Amino acid sequence: MALTSFIQVHPSSHFPIQNLPFGVFKPEPASPARPGVAIGDYVLDLSAIASAGLFNGPILSNSDCFHQPNLNNFLALGRPAWKEARATLQKLLSSTEPTLRDNESLRQKSLIPLSKVEMLVPMAIGDYSDFFSSMHHAKNCGTMFRGPQNAIQPNWFQLPIAYHGRASSIVISGTDITRPRGQGAPTGNSPPYFGPSLKLDFELEMAAVVGPGNELGKPVDVNEAADHIFGLVLMNDWSARDIQAWEYVPLGPFLGKSFGTTVSPWIVTLEALEPFSCDAPKQEPHPLPYLAEKVSKNYDISLEVQIKPAGQKDACVVTKSNFNHLYWTLTQQLAHHTINGCNLRPGDLLGSGTISGPEPESYGCLLELTWNGQKQLSLNGLTRKFLEDGDEVIITGFSKGNGYNVGFGTCSGKIVPPP
Amino acid sequence: MALTSFIQVHPSSHFPIQNLPFGVFKPEPASPARPGVAIGDYVLDLSAIASAGLFNGPILSNSDCFHQPNLNNFLALGRPAWKEARATLQKLLSSTEPTLRDNESLRQKSLIPLSKVEMLVPMAIGDYSDFFSSMHHAKNCGTMFRGPQNAIQPNWFQLPIAYHGRASSIVISGTDITRPRGQGAPTGNSPPYFGPSLKLDFELEMAAVVGPGNELGKPVDVNEAADHIFGLVLMNDWSARDIQAWEYVPLGPFLGKSFGTTVSPWIVTLEALEPFSCDAPKQEPHPLPYLAEKVSKNYDISLEVQIKPAGQKDACVVTKSNFNHLYWTLTQQLAHHTINGCNLRPGDLLGSGTISGPEPESYGCLLELTWNGQKQLSLNGLTRKFLEDGDEVIITGFSKGNGYNVGFGTCSGKIVPPP
Repeated sequence: MALTSFIQVHPSSHFPIQNLPFGVFKPEPASPARPGVAIGDYVLDLSAIASAGLFNGPILSNSDCFHQPNLNNFLALGRPAWKEARATLQKLLSSTEPTLRDNESLRQKSLIPLSKVEMLVPMAIGDYSDFFSSMHHAKNCGTMFRGPQNAIQPNWFQLPIAYHGRASSIVISGTDITRPRGQGAPTGNSPPYFGPSLKLDFELEMAAVVGPGNELGKPVDVNEAADHIFGLVLMNDWSARDIQAWEYVPLGPFLGKSFGTTVSPWIVTLEALEPFSCDAPKQEPHPLPYLAEKVSKNYDISLEVQIKPAGQKDACVVTKSNFNHLYWTLTQQLAHHTINGCNLRPGDLLGSGTISGPEPESYGCLLELTWNGQKQLSLNGLTRKFLEDGDEVIITGFSKGNGYNVGFGTCSGKIVPPP
Repeated sequence: MALTSFIQVHPSSHFPIQNLPFGVFKPEPASPARPGVAIGDYVLDLSAIASAGLFNGPILSNSDCFHQPNLNNFLALGRPAWKEARATLQKLLSSTEPTLRDNESLRQKSLIPLSKVEMLVPMAIGDYSDFFSSMHHAKNCGTMFRGPQNAIQPNWFQLPIAYHGRASSIVISGTDITRPRGQGAPTGNSPPYFGPSLKLDFELEMAAVVGPGNELGKPVDVNEAADHIFGLVLMNDWSARDIQAWEYVPLGPFLGKSFGTTVSPWIVTLEALEPFSCDAPKQEPHPLPYLAEKVSKNYDISLEVQIKPAGQKDACVVTKSNFNHLYWTLTQQLAHHTINGCNLRPGDLLGSGTISGPEPESYGCLLELTWNGQKQLSLNGLTRKFLEDGDEVIITGFSKGNGYNVGFGTCSGKIVPPP
């Protein structure tokens, strides 16, 4: 019989007892931020559980990691602590365990309706890197800009390409995104375009949250890389295609990306995702030894993007993709990131890159869906080439279990015009 | 008559009373880090001066910014606080002021020989961005890789090109740099090269330290950008040219840079550099209005790079350049960085890019000095195409005043082989 909680969880909920994703929240606007896990329509306040002495395992009983405004200290403790926390919380929330179930005062203190709390970016992000791990995305972008003959660069199949992103402008789901101003390519002999971006786009991504880091100069072995990954969030890597196209040669994307990146508030752990692991795609050519893993894993996570135009009641699904379309695995990304000795720190964020599938209905951004504005996307009677002011973009994702979902909630943001 | 200190300062010192650069140090290995300013061969402990109640101006008298392990809180206070601190310290250290001069106990507590302290990276760096602002460097790199006809890309003259760098691997002068391992381009039908970088290089740079930041979505006006810059450090943006060349299309430099970036410990303030300000180069085409400044300033800072091979007694000068060779100004860099709404935070670092001058003797990296290894550089009887294990690279820089120097000390690092 499946594990159940004494808290009622609707079968369609993203947050059953099998999930228990970690986040950081404020119960009231003026109260200090603290860690929590989502269960059904509630958040369980981990600072209250810790204060009640209920984290009584060998690692967490003497830790103050749940009395912090972010998860960084907990992330740094590594997998044994994460497993201990999960076991403690799954037991505490289970229907057969009286400790919390029958303690009304503690339930009052520790279980708060999700609808009443403010969620925050759950970790202090020292560095954010963004990969480019979907072959379909790489191929589509390459075809658009260089033609089908040279669509994918020769380095792409040898290493997980990535760039350094901007950590300061990572915001939590629900934060408005100001349309960036900037330069676009000149036409003919005119000066460059300057003004609000005319090609504002979303990018459907997921991102790994780094747990224990590594020392500068000491790479992480690809077969040990999973121990450095706590879990995954949904991510929208908003992109201004006109700014990006003009600025990116030769040093890569900069202002076309750094105006905002949205993450979902709940980090779903690799433990919770384990039942949904699947084989990663076969890699040909075979990767170099430092990227060749004994077990090469992906995760079956259904992803969907909706756009809700201003004034419309309903959002419209614009793409459906899956995390398992990625060519390079999370562990290969992490091992590659450190092979030069680069140090990762707890809380670092590793974006997957746009997750496009093989079918046109599974492309992960408007650039691909409208083929750089060459065709219109239909939205309940409206059309879009790129995002307009007032458009809200909502990413969701979940893995389907037997009678339950392990989900990520939503990652949303609305475009507002520049001041 | 020139301002002098009661502390003896040799005329060749980088740290006379006219300079007073800010850093962070530990007097003993086990003592907490705290801010200081350099004066001659000493560091003045600002936590001791603050504890003695000597920061008695309106802004700093109630601040705990000098009881912190980094300068971030002080940086956030902005120019009025920086001017107040400078005025207080210049008075306190002047030869005519008895307060500190005649207080032996306070002198003992607050003045520590530079030779005895451990210097640290003086700020917590949230994000590090690196520009590409020397036209000579852009032209040389472009000529090498694309030929003289297309040496400089059309976007270069319209905007200060930059990329996001890696904050975690920024280290303080004196830290060894481990030669990175990684992939290099394949030759013919072979798989890519994998191993220790064969083209390890330095890059002579300076970097601006950001003071008050800006809110996400609110660009900084170019004519107000100077108020967001506290001062400058020397920087060595170590680069693995073979890794960089293979990985950088299409998303820019990543592992070719992220294995280490060295900064000098002392931040020289814009106030101290003001006497050495000079006109920035004329920009043609005229920049777009958001980059057009009322006053366009550079600084006359002489820069020099020496290499000291393992086992050699003497270092050998390999290049002499000047900060005033930069085409894009610090303020244009900062305004451009925020024009899309990107938020800067106190302590952020903005690298200038390699500072090459017009003459071959003033090129700022080995890539240019040896023309990508096509010629040898002579080092006191030895030769180099790129850096070898054991090579120490030492950057120095100073501005020459009337009877004194305003200098940056050194920014050094030695190459060690991978484990």
